[in-house]
Amino acid sequence: MSLLSNLKLNNNIEGLLAVKSAQVLKTRTGDKMYLNLQLTDGCNEIAAKHWDYEGETPTAKVLYIKATVGEYRGEFQLIITSFRPATPEEYDPKQFLPVCPVPLEELWKRWDILASQVKNSQLINLLTLVKEKHGERFAEAPGAVTHHHACIGGCLQHSVSVAEMANSMWQPGLNRDLLIVGGVLHDIGKMIAYDWSEGVLAMSDEGQFLDHIMIGGFLLRDLAKEAGVEWKLTVKLLHIVASHHGQLEYGSPVVPKIPEAYIIHHCDMIDANVEKMLKVREKAEGSWAKVYGLGYVYTETLK
Amino acid sequence: MSLLSNLKLNNNIEGLLAVKSAQVLKTRTGDKMYLNLQLTDGCNEIAAKHWDYEGETPTAKVLYIKATVGEYRGEFQLIITSFRPATPEEYDPKQFLPVCPVPLEELWKRWDILASQVKNSQLINLLTLVKEKHGERFAEAPGAVTHHHACIGGCLQHSVSVAEMANSMWQPGLNRDLLIVGGVLHDIGKMIAYDWSEGVLAMSDEGQFLDHIMIGGFLLRDLAKEAGVEWKLTVKLLHIVASHHGQLEYGSPVVPKIPEAYIIHHCDMIDANVEKMLKVREKAEGSWAKVYGLGYVYTETLK
Amino acid sequence: MSLLSNLKLNNNIEGLLAVKSAQVLKTRTGDKMYLNLQLTDGCNEIAAKHWDYEGETPTAKVLYIKATVGEYRGEFQLIITSFRPATPEEYDPKQFLPVCPVPLEELWKRWDILASQVKNSQLINLLTLVKEKHGERFAEAPGAVTHHHACIGGCLQHSVSVAEMANSMWQPGLNRDLLIVGGVLHDIGKMIAYDWSEGVLAMSDEGQFLDHIMIGGFLLRDLAKEAGVEWKLTVKLLHIVASHHGQLEYGSPVVPKIPEAYIIHHCDMIDANVEKMLKVREKAEGSWAKVYGLGYVYTETLK
Amino acid sequence: MSLLSNLKLNNNIEGLLAVKSAQVLKTRTGDKMYLNLQLTDGCNEIAAKHWDYEGETPTAKVLYIKATVGEYRGEFQLIITSFRPATPEEYDPKQFLPVCPVPLEELWKRWDILASQVKNSQLINLLTLVKEKHGERFAEAPGAVTHHHACIGGCLQHSVSVAEMANSMWQPGLNRDLLIVGGVLHDIGKMIAYDWSEGVLAMSDEGQFLDHIMIGGFLLRDLAKEAGVEWKLTVKLLHIVASHHGQLEYGSPVVPKIPEAYIIHHCDMIDANVEKMLKVREKAEGSWAKVYGLGYVYTETLK
Amino acid sequence: MSLLSNLKLNNNIEGLLAVKSAQVLKTRTGDKMYLNLQLTDGCNEIAAKHWDYEGETPTAKVLYIKATVGEYRGEFQLIITSFRPATPEEYDPKQFLPVCPVPLEELWKRWDILASQVKNSQLINLLTLVKEKHGERFAEAPGAVTHHHACIGGCLQHSVSVAEMANSMWQPGLNRDLLIVGGVLHDIGKMIAYDWSEGVLAMSDEGQFLDHIMIGGFLLRDLAKEAGVEWKLTVKLLHIVASHHGQLEYGSPVVPKIPEAYIIHHCDMIDANVEKMLKVREKAEGSWAKVYGLGYVYTETLK
Amino acid sequence: MSLLSNLKLNNNIEGLLAVKSAQVLKTRTGDKMYLNLQLTDGCNEIAAKHWDYEGETPTAKVLYIKATVGEYRGEFQLIITSFRPATPEEYDPKQFLPVCPVPLEELWKRWDILASQVKNSQLINLLTLVKEKHGERFAEAPGAVTHHHACIGGCLQHSVSVAEMANSMWQPGLNRDLLIVGGVLHDIGKMIAYDWSEGVLAMSDEGQFLDHIMIGGFLLRDLAKEAGVEWKLTVKLLHIVASHHGQLEYGSPVVPKIPEAYIIHHCDMIDANVEKMLKVREKAEGSWAKVYGLGYVYTETLK
Repeated sequence: MSLLSNLKLNNNIEGLLAVKSAQVLKTRTGDKMYLNLQLTDGCNEIAAKHWDYEGETPTAKVLYIKATVGEYRGEFQLIITSFRPATPEEYDPKQFLPVCPVPLEELWKRWDILASQVKNSQLINLLTLVKEKHGERFAEAPGAVTHHHACIGGCLQHSVSVAEMANSMWQPGLNRDLLIVGGVLHDIGKMIAYDWSEGVLAMSDEGQFLDHIMIGGFLLRDLAKEAGVEWKLTVKLLHIVASHHGQLEYGSPVVPKIPEAYIIHHCDMIDANVEKMLKVREKAEGSWAKVYGLGYVYTETLK
Repeated sequence: MSLLSNLKLNNNIEGLLAVKSAQVLKTRTGDKMYLNLQLTDGCNEIAAKHWDYEGETPTAKVLYIKATVGEYRGEFQLIITSFRPATPEEYDPKQFLPVCPVPLEELWKRWDILASQVKNSQLINLLTLVKEKHGERFAEAPGAVTHHHACIGGCLQHSVSVAEMANSMWQPGLNRDLLIVGGVLHDIGKMIAYDWSEGVLAMSDEGQFLDHIMIGGFLLRDLAKEAGVEWKLTVKLLHIVASHHGQLEYGSPVVPKIPEAYIIHHCDMIDANVEKMLKVREKAEGSWAKVYGLGYVYTETLK
Repeated sequence: MSLLSNLKLNNNIEGLLAVKSAQVLKTRTGDKMYLNLQLTDGCNEIAAKHWDYEGETPTAKVLYIKATVGEYRGEFQLIITSFRPATPEEYDPKQFLPVCPVPLEELWKRWDILASQVKNSQLINLLTLVKEKHGERFAEAPGAVTHHHACIGGCLQHSVSVAEMANSMWQPGLNRDLLIVGGVLHDIGKMIAYDWSEGVLAMSDEGQFLDHIMIGGFLLRDLAKEAGVEWKLTVKLLHIVASHHGQLEYGSPVVPKIPEAYIIHHCDMIDANVEKMLKVREKAEGSWAKVYGLGYVYTETLK
Repeated sequence: MSLLSNLKLNNNIEGLLAVKSAQVLKTRTGDKMYLNLQLTDGCNEIAAKHWDYEGETPTAKVLYIKATVGEYRGEFQLIITSFRPATPEEYDPKQFLPVCPVPLEELWKRWDILASQVKNSQLINLLTLVKEKHGERFAEAPGAVTHHHACIGGCLQHSVSVAEMANSMWQPGLNRDLLIVGGVLHDIGKMIAYDWSEGVLAMSDEGQFLDHIMIGGFLLRDLAKEAGVEWKLTVKLLHIVASHHGQLEYGSPVVPKIPEAYIIHHCDMIDANVEKMLKVREKAEGSWAKVYGLGYVYTETLK
Repeated sequence: MSLLSNLKLNNNIEGLLAVKSAQVLKTRTGDKMYLNLQLTDGCNEIAAKHWDYEGETPTAKVLYIKATVGEYRGEFQLIITSFRPATPEEYDPKQFLPVCPVPLEELWKRWDILASQVKNSQLINLLTLVKEKHGERFAEAPGAVTHHHACIGGCLQHSVSVAEMANSMWQPGLNRDLLIVGGVLHDIGKMIAYDWSEGVLAMSDEGQFLDHIMIGGFLLRDLAKEAGVEWKLTVKLLHIVASHHGQLEYGSPVVPKIPEAYIIHHCDMIDANVEKMLKVREKAEGSWAKVYGLGYVYTETLK
Repeated sequence: MSLLSNLKLNNNIEGLLAVKSAQVLKTRTGDKMYLNLQLTDGCNEIAAKHWDYEGETPTAKVLYIKATVGEYRGEFQLIITSFRPATPEEYDPKQFLPVCPVPLEELWKRWDILASQVKNSQLINLLTLVKEKHGERFAEAPGAVTHHHACIGGCLQHSVSVAEMANSMWQPGLNRDLLIVGGVLHDIGKMIAYDWSEGVLAMSDEGQFLDHIMIGGFLLRDLAKEAGVEWKLTVKLLHIVASHHGQLEYGSPVVPKIPEAYIIHHCDMIDANVEKMLKVREKAEGSWAKVYGLGYVYTETLK
């Protein structure tokens, strides 16, 4: 359980917190200095003050802090009594990254339900192989650096959702296996295109140079070969990865040319953007808020 | 049952057929003239010849024809023995238009299932009103003049499909009523924007001047008022109609600003374009065919 | 007459002024606090100081102020002696909004001159109805929230100008009635799409969800019906409203398909953008200034 | 007066006509050949037949024809009795080009009225110089090769119209001289960018390589220098020429940066496209016709 | 040497020719039929007639023909005396495809000169491997299906040219190895993306589904691994392949992010389009010709 | 040699320096004021402090400064002991502008080498004339105001580079003279379109109103006439100037229609953008930096 959950006024806490910003400031009356921090435990953020502070601005990314829980203008803030930089051994940089709100086990359970509907044994092998060989990293990858599903596990959450949506779009003439397998694997390249080892969601060099679509193609071709998927079928899966941005100007080298790819593209759009639309409701102040890529969005829930 | 269904070689048939093209031509040997026709009963097309023809090219849109069923290069063709122009009383121009392959009762049944999931009583009233007041015309309207759902009943088929898809996209935070009602009514303007009274699918003058989005807004506003839907809710429905093309350059005066509208836009795209992709399979000759708005599409079914 | 017109140095003034910004600051020498305000009477803005101020930053939108007219760096500023928040009863929020520089009577007179050139009696009825039924609100609506004609009455000023320009573009083959009536009514939706009841020019929820073109269509259809305008003619007027942004990507669901609509679109562009080009001259400092939607514009008057 | 005006059935005519198309065809009965021609006198077109023709297809651009006026399906056609190729001395290739419907004198009279409103003496000199030095060629230049004002004199007709429109758009703050002079001279480059010496409206090599905007700049710079226009003023005129297409993607190297240039751009659009919209009415058959650059246009006159 | 090179009037020839089109037509006088063919030997095309022909239109793709060389309107044509369909054993479908005008040995020699300037031993290995393992197929691949380098060997010719150009663009700060190796391998995917086994230049299914950029990435990644190229360097080569179309809307999933990739993109554009511009000169009739992707192009050589 | 080159700690310097920014600030302890300056000698920038400063913020653009060279956080800074505003006579505003890193003589030498390869005597005359008549100003002009070659001499450096690149692109069928002369003169308009007389790189009014392409056309047409270049050839050179931005939306009124113009366009792109890509390496901190017009660029040199 995270350090900043379930705080109580006037309690004491101690533990590791990551620094989001730090300044040494003068008090209003101008006669004293204090340290002003914004801290996070990965899930929650909190403001913190260290009064009568005369040191330098701390440069460490993570601090071990002892503090009392105070309050300012209706929100908790920490009153620090002492702190020291954390040592590299004390923590894993990833522990301060935001984490996908859906539990991992639930996501894998939904993955399994999807996998159980796949008929082609080669594709069943492929799903098993992905989970066994890359499951750990795949389940850590974010869905994006910002904007949508920008959290540890976001890629898996998004992939499972897209596959479920695509599956529900099945109609006669369509291949359900492709809808499901293409859905869960369309973003597989993100586990290489992104890098979160430093405690920040970022693009890797590979991601900058090749983007997740091309990287996804590389990964999927090797995995499909290893799983014994025939080439003709592999080409269709690669096509789904390649075309899932829907248009060349959005980075797909080809547009969808089979209905299954077309559906996965649109489900990808829906899942990513509906998430953004619902998320902005949590923190928006007025009825309208500007959302990246969507313009002004209505922030009230329609009952 | 239509005249050109279940033809048998050497049988005689007679009845009304609409003329798709007509020319008087010379035979190869150059010594005789013949009448060359392409005819339709609305569902099927057939070539027809009237040998030793010395009259003018017929100008009537519909002919009453007596003919024997012949064969040429592996396909049926009619050998006409006599014909006369049909009189206006003999037929309804609409009877020669292509008809939606899904039976009307089935579409209305699916409509009713959707309607039964709507909770808001004002919106229930609205759906009832639309069906009672405009049901007949709404169920005739095509989905488009060409390209997709270009048949009598195509609009209803498309609308019900979009609503079903949108409904299956529901997730916590979304309003199911809007997904369903917005889905079935997003294209309501097509029943005025198109005109099929002359036996051809065409845009009406209103359609040319205002397009189906604006006309749909007019219809829906009046119907919502009559059904007692409160203004705040009506505005959201009108927004779904207005934004369902997704982008300004596709004719929506506003982009989707609520997730329900965003979802309906994408379901609209999926339903229209997957239909085109599946339809081209029926008549394509190679593995690849060019489809309007989609470029080259793979025409083989993925088993 | 507005409070901040015709100020004289060292005079005392008192009255209601709206707050555009407010901060409590320290003096240069660092030993005292003062209140720094930017105030407006709707027409003019002025800086104001309250020296030796020890209170909180005032949060009221409107203040009742007593002050002496001082001067700083060649511009007037107010030296406040006392102030209190205004009560809601004391003022109308709209009184602090900028007002169109052309007097209302003059605009309506120009409207009447235009109306007197209309020949079709149905359209004459329509103009009379608009003026009688909605004249008050129509004459308040701004032309935009920012950028051009962003003031109370701006919509009417713009509408009359566009109609005059379009009227002057008449040539044989064109319908003068449509040029005039389409010109004055093309932006009628703005009286609903904007909201200025809170003392700020803003988009209403309807404006965000439907935009002024679709709302204008709703208003105009009802008014035309009430005024007895035949449907065929109404469709052309609605088409002018629908197409007046000229291109789909600017929010028109259809492009102009009659020359009268085409002309009104271009007159709309000219009136809006020439206003911006002339307005920037008033406050620009160098010879070139960046203007929204126009890039760099030359700010010197060409004699 | 042109040869094909006021034809009377069964009259004989003779004279020079330009050939638009020519084929040797077989009669329906297949036993005889005839010559089938489409001819023009520059203003009117007519079909012509030479029965029992056994010669080659004529290759001359202009023929001297003797014929009787016959009739076919309700339209006149010529029954040729004899013809011979015209010799180069007999005609001027330009005489078979379509001619602007407004008489030249009337256009120059309108030019003079505009010129008389110009106040700046340098600009008055400029207009006089243009008319004296280039008047003849300027008055011949077409407005375009196809699409709008595609006739001898079309450029002058268009230029005068644009200047009149721009002049009527004057408002305080604008420079009337620039509106007028910029209006009449904005397309001056067309007299070099087009070539009509061969009896066909075509682009010249200069027009292909540089386009009329850059060529217009060259002409105008020289003429302004010769007329004694000061450089600062010349730059504004050159800017009007350079920016009159309004946007870079339409071939203007700069966008309008003074309101006078902005107005001339829009008047240019109106004059060109309204002409197209009105012209299509003359020959359109249904209520809607497709017009280059405008999509579907309504072809009925609005009374 | 090809059958249709160095023809002489009245000589007899015999051999295999591919059929580009075939019709049975009637003579002008209407009393006889003849076979009208358009034939090719891969390099040259020629018209051919078989007079007094009474058979069916031949459907074979390749014919064995005996004919006399005749002449019609200043061009050679074949007068066929007899012909028969060729049997599959008699020919290789590829032999009738157009062949790159530069001899293969010369292209490989230029490749070797380029390779000799590469310093990094891993990349030297890579070039050697490509040549040894895929040299034969790589040297057959066309540069495109139509438009530019559409001939057997076109891809190699284009690749060598681009590498030479890029090499000549070297300046301090740039990596010459990447310019050379990226240049010769940027289009390596075309050897899979195209298919010419049927005697027609066409896209393969892989090419339609994945395009040559993604396929090139697959090939290059495997080859680089096999040649022992370190991963960091491989990523830069893959980036050059991925970005060589320069912009997302032209099918590159990423834009160039290193100067070497930027240069290769522009050299690719120059080589492809200059070839088109020079090629149109050979067959253009006037001074201007329309070229795919370039608009009107001047067809005269500038001396 | 410039004042700020080769500074040594604790040395005294005095001389003229241009002010890039100036503020009067309070010290951390809050009890004293100091003057904080950012200064440049045209080549180098340096921070400077004047402690215990009680005057106004200096407004002069250039100061005569006496100072000691100090150090702060590992970088030199000046500790000013006294300063005074420079008088206009003391300096040339241009002396504080950044200067092209390649010596002028070298650029002209490369120009001469290019010129020596030109065969057409008219074009040789043209190059001689440009150098003699405008050489001084041409050699001062910047390549741009910001972004690339934004320094005195940048235009010449860029022009010579582009001509060298284009020259190296020669192949049979191309005209080397046009590649060279078009290359060195394509940006000639920049010497009028930019203005640097005030010590700042800026667009001139002519540049704003006409852009450097049109101005370049004016200059080149006059110079070509004076040098005796025949009109047909001049038109091709003007075309190269006009089309060198490659696309209408980038400000070229025509696209390239001869291969020489096409090549110069791409060499222009390469030279400008490779310079930007290499320059960002000097000051970038991480591996990736955002570069105007290019997005994220890799900043490490590839060895």
